[in-house]
Amino acid sequence: MDIVIGVDIGGTKTKIGLVDQNGECLEQTFFRTQDFPNLTNYLDQIKITSDELIQKLGKEVNILGCGIGAPNASSKNGTIENASNLVWKESVPIIEKLKERMPMPMRIMNDASAAALGEMLFGGAKNMTDFIVITLGTGFGAGIVANGKLIDGYDGFAGELGHVDMTLGDGRLTGLGVRGGLEAYVSATGLKRTIMYMLSKYMVESRFRDVAYNDLHGEDITKAAEEGDEIALKAFDYTARVMGLALANFTAFTQPEAFILMGGLTNSGKWIMEPLERYFNANLLEVYKGKVKLMYSKMEGKTAAICGAAALIWEIQDKPS
Amino acid sequence: MDIVIGVDIGGTKTKIGLVDQNGECLEQTFFRTQDFPNLTNYLDQIKITSDELIQKLGKEVNILGCGIGAPNASSKNGTIENASNLVWKESVPIIEKLKERMPMPMRIMNDASAAALGEMLFGGAKNMTDFIVITLGTGFGAGIVANGKLIDGYDGFAGELGHVDMTLGDGRLTGLGVRGGLEAYVSATGLKRTIMYMLSKYMVESRFRDVAYNDLHGEDITKAAEEGDEIALKAFDYTARVMGLALANFTAFTQPEAFILMGGLTNSGKWIMEPLERYFNANLLEVYKGKVKLMYSKMEGKTAAICGAAALIWEIQDKPS
Repeated sequence: MDIVIGVDIGGTKTKIGLVDQNGECLEQTFFRTQDFPNLTNYLDQIKITSDELIQKLGKEVNILGCGIGAPNASSKNGTIENASNLVWKESVPIIEKLKERMPMPMRIMNDASAAALGEMLFGGAKNMTDFIVITLGTGFGAGIVANGKLIDGYDGFAGELGHVDMTLGDGRLTGLGVRGGLEAYVSATGLKRTIMYMLSKYMVESRFRDVAYNDLHGEDITKAAEEGDEIALKAFDYTARVMGLALANFTAFTQPEAFILMGGLTNSGKWIMEPLERYFNANLLEVYKGKVKLMYSKMEGKTAAICGAAALIWEIQDKPS
Repeated sequence: MDIVIGVDIGGTKTKIGLVDQNGECLEQTFFRTQDFPNLTNYLDQIKITSDELIQKLGKEVNILGCGIGAPNASSKNGTIENASNLVWKESVPIIEKLKERMPMPMRIMNDASAAALGEMLFGGAKNMTDFIVITLGTGFGAGIVANGKLIDGYDGFAGELGHVDMTLGDGRLTGLGVRGGLEAYVSATGLKRTIMYMLSKYMVESRFRDVAYNDLHGEDITKAAEEGDEIALKAFDYTARVMGLALANFTAFTQPEAFILMGGLTNSGKWIMEPLERYFNANLLEVYKGKVKLMYSKMEGKTAAICGAAALIWEIQDKPS
């Protein structure tokens, strides 16, 4: 059977899976990205993990290629450049280096753009020509589709919306030093920072007064909200406010039919979605009201990013080359 | 000879011209939009003016159609909706009404989108697949081209970047009530508002202490800057700062090869462009630095908008229909 290897390189985890032509992820696993600060070891680990998955699948497979989603990836250059949430800095020629280990057709793309391609091929955007996928993980990513095509930009770096300044040059710094940058507020990391901010701003009791920043996890914040922890509730409301405004702003750009949300922060469910819907609609221009859907990815959470990466290779199978 | 009527509906002026297949505007004129608050009279005036121009041209012409650029126009519905800088409010079915007077092929589009089409067909973007036209008139408009195609959006309202909130919901209100909206800062109107702001903030002498808001004109602000008026200089610097940040933000969206600027505010020349270049580059993400050009429209200032509108009809001449 034909199979594509999908690799999702995230700031926290590197997910690898084997994806068939229907977008089914047949095998998958992950390792911690930060366990491999040395690039050579990291690339070796991708090769080792891929081989293990193929062996585990236990079938005769024909590997069509490997698709990679990563933050700050340039599809045109085959590189990852200055990614703020990855350990290797400057320009990493990842396609070239990985092909030495795994000689096969290979493509890389901004992780959120890959996810958007996955939604078009396999997911909830099969019939849409204008939509935006938002990934809310360690950072904030966006994959923009307009006129039925992914927007890649002049040099392959379109969709870096996590670094849009929301505050006229005021506010928090992102990992890339952008003052007021969106992902400093709206991401798993942003939510943690907002917990700290709320602890500084208010004096109400909270379970988070006993938790260090580095020990904070998204699941705990959701749990705290469920228990009525005021700091957690305020943090979700604040995150949703910034995000609602951001998505309303983005609507004025390409007027998407829908925003498709995925990534760690969406696991917080209604605690983020309910205020998000409210703030989004309040900020939307009159001409857009009632026309823009906020939806979750229909692809299974754990494998959406892997399938998106694999879509990079599946996409080019249909085309004459 | 084949001719297209181009109509640019602006908050201040309505410009009409006759455009040939090379994008040459053979005849043109304008009337004041606000002189015709009644829609029936206004549409009659477009018909009258068009007829006058054709008569003035004094040649046997074959009119292929009429293209219209207007703020808040929906290309899909043929309407202008809730335009903050026009006198008629709510939804105006302009194509339907104008066709009653001028039965011919007719298309309408957001004025800045029409301008972008004009730049692709006739102007400085002939070889570009990814660029953004910015119109700086009474308002702030944007026409976005990506993958070689104009971005229209799900419902024909893409590119309303003048209503992007730059301030996390703080700041000035636009004509549509958007708090912190870009066009409240970056437009001919925005510059006037900033003169007022600077007069409130500083106590330095300025010629503008003797000028009422309604008597302020862009040319006078440029002239004052040339004479070293500190309030004028501060106003240009502030406008350029907000605009530089905005264009850097927009770059993260579609990564254009160039921004092409046109409209009244560009007549201020170096007073806006020099600080704009500085602020733009300072705010640009590392991956974009040195890759994005800021340029003026190469189309003649007075006719660029007319030619853009006419491009709506010229564009569909080449296509089989």
